[in-house]
Amino acid sequence: MRATLMYGAGDVRVENVPDSAVEQPTDALVRITASCVCGSDLWPYGSMSPADGPVRMGHEFIGVVEDTGSEVTTVKRGDLVVAPFAISDNTCAFCREGLHTSCANPQAGFWDTLPEEGGQAEAVRVPLADGTLVRLPVAADSALIPSLLTLSDVFGTGYHAAVAGGVDERTRVTVIGDGAVGLLAVLSARRLGAEQIVLMGRHRARTDLGREFGATDVVPARGEEGVEAVRELTGGEGTHVVLEAVGTMPAYRQALGIVRSGGVISRVGVPQYEEAPVGFGSLFGRNLRLAGGPAPVRAYIDALMPDILDGTLEPGKVFDATTTLDGIPGGYRDMADRKALKVLVRP
Amino acid sequence: MRATLMYGAGDVRVENVPDSAVEQPTDALVRITASCVCGSDLWPYGSMSPADGPVRMGHEFIGVVEDTGSEVTTVKRGDLVVAPFAISDNTCAFCREGLHTSCANPQAGFWDTLPEEGGQAEAVRVPLADGTLVRLPVAADSALIPSLLTLSDVFGTGYHAAVAGGVDERTRVTVIGDGAVGLLAVLSARRLGAEQIVLMGRHRARTDLGREFGATDVVPARGEEGVEAVRELTGGEGTHVVLEAVGTMPAYRQALGIVRSGGVISRVGVPQYEEAPVGFGSLFGRNLRLAGGPAPVRAYIDALMPDILDGTLEPGKVFDATTTLDGIPGGYRDMADRKALKVLVRP
Repeated sequence: MRATLMYGAGDVRVENVPDSAVEQPTDALVRITASCVCGSDLWPYGSMSPADGPVRMGHEFIGVVEDTGSEVTTVKRGDLVVAPFAISDNTCAFCREGLHTSCANPQAGFWDTLPEEGGQAEAVRVPLADGTLVRLPVAADSALIPSLLTLSDVFGTGYHAAVAGGVDERTRVTVIGDGAVGLLAVLSARRLGAEQIVLMGRHRARTDLGREFGATDVVPARGEEGVEAVRELTGGEGTHVVLEAVGTMPAYRQALGIVRSGGVISRVGVPQYEEAPVGFGSLFGRNLRLAGGPAPVRAYIDALMPDILDGTLEPGKVFDATTTLDGIPGGYRDMADRKALKVLVRP
Repeated sequence: MRATLMYGAGDVRVENVPDSAVEQPTDALVRITASCVCGSDLWPYGSMSPADGPVRMGHEFIGVVEDTGSEVTTVKRGDLVVAPFAISDNTCAFCREGLHTSCANPQAGFWDTLPEEGGQAEAVRVPLADGTLVRLPVAADSALIPSLLTLSDVFGTGYHAAVAGGVDERTRVTVIGDGAVGLLAVLSARRLGAEQIVLMGRHRARTDLGREFGATDVVPARGEEGVEAVRELTGGEGTHVVLEAVGTMPAYRQALGIVRSGGVISRVGVPQYEEAPVGFGSLFGRNLRLAGGPAPVRAYIDALMPDILDGTLEPGKVFDATTTLDGIPGGYRDMADRKALKVLVRP
């Protein structure tokens, strides 16, 4: 079958690989009908050493169940399913609390823990299928597929940022980052009732979509200038919550400057740093809180799907380009060059 | 009048200084009847450069109002009052939300922002007296004074750790540190209903008091060994909340090792570091949260005082030594040498 491999920075190839197949009794084999390229794929695309490659890519997909192991009970051959970007059993103590990314099952983990599998491919073996996969009550060619595909990662991740940040109708929110996750963090903050949502981003087409998703203000400036602009919009105090959807140290420092004393910085951009300021002069002195992490998107699918099915929310608008499996290398390039916000893949 | 000055590491002196007096219409002059030495005073006692001194010391006290400015309305001459370690107006937006340590009033701040005032003295000028001071419904020689004095800092600080950590009857808690704040964090976690409270400390007399305050387990080991011990006590998972009442990097790392995935590290020990690990390998990957800061103890006095007045709680047990104003240098020495847990000062 065909699958996507990254050989190093800027070097993505679609090649023939051994066919995926059911191996464990809890596995399902899924024939992929829609997948996409993630903003987080751009980190290795920008910096990966060839010595670390090649690696299989893709952790967001919808597909049709083609085969199941003997213990799989919740999905069957022919079902259309969506997979979260973390494999989980949905039954352990952490999953029951909604923290599927910390699932205690030995088979649980992120897709990159499975070196022979990936979502940017023709098919994929899904471990812990009962826990991981969620059936979709639509056809594979439904117009809702792009929106439903965002449940695999970017919508759930934006939503996690807002939930972990404690967004509600009493909070003012700043979202740092106008990528797909940032824009869907805006949509999520709006869904949770935030009264003011400031989107920090400088790409007009994206911030326009952000306004459509619910941003009340847009701040193109960054750094000190951006901090000043947000403070001006908030009576000098900053916002109760900052949803940090980038992951760089400048974004972290920007969040520190923008967050209101006693407020929360909720991070869902994968940190490209390990150490950061958290002492008296940064977090501690102002009783700031730090929250967030890899989103347990499985926990949010049941809550978010109805809004997509009934047309209330259209998170799929983050897809502004479509390609085929063989077009994936170009999709990476377009996203890295900021020509595309997020690329949908129809194998 | 007599007051305490720190000249440098290990060099505390009680000297004659100009009498404190009302200066602003919102000031009160308080004749101090009980004060104490704080664990946080030991940081400069261990490291302060003589070039930075001398500085006035003391931020925890009870006393009798002797004079008030023309605008003071809530306390009057003769009232016995307790002062939180932060000056606040108790009316600004932050105070109304319970974050008095971020009071927006220009006169607000910590005692060390007033170079000519301090609580380890015969008297003190209290700015924003209406907001800062709280009347005590007892006599200055009441047996409850030690417990009421803890409302100025250590009890409120331990309580803030537990509140900021989200402690409730469903949480397991670890407290790092067997100083006064750590022990009162135990008492606070107990008050909030925590089912398991692990106290990490190695001073038997202190951990015995911790057990009396509600600790269900005591772990004398530190570092990796201590982390392992707590994990063994919690089915391998760690505790939902870690109350970090020390402030050193080893204590932070210990907290990281002990906290359950998805849990909270709530810090009230003043961080002796500015940068700390918060990336994928520490906080982010496990959706850990970081909370805490200087405690807005003013916000907790109304809730905690009744439990002291009716004898339900005796936080004053953290005082294991008493001295006079002139005995304060010895009090610092005894606390630094760990001969005393916390020294009460009766001028």
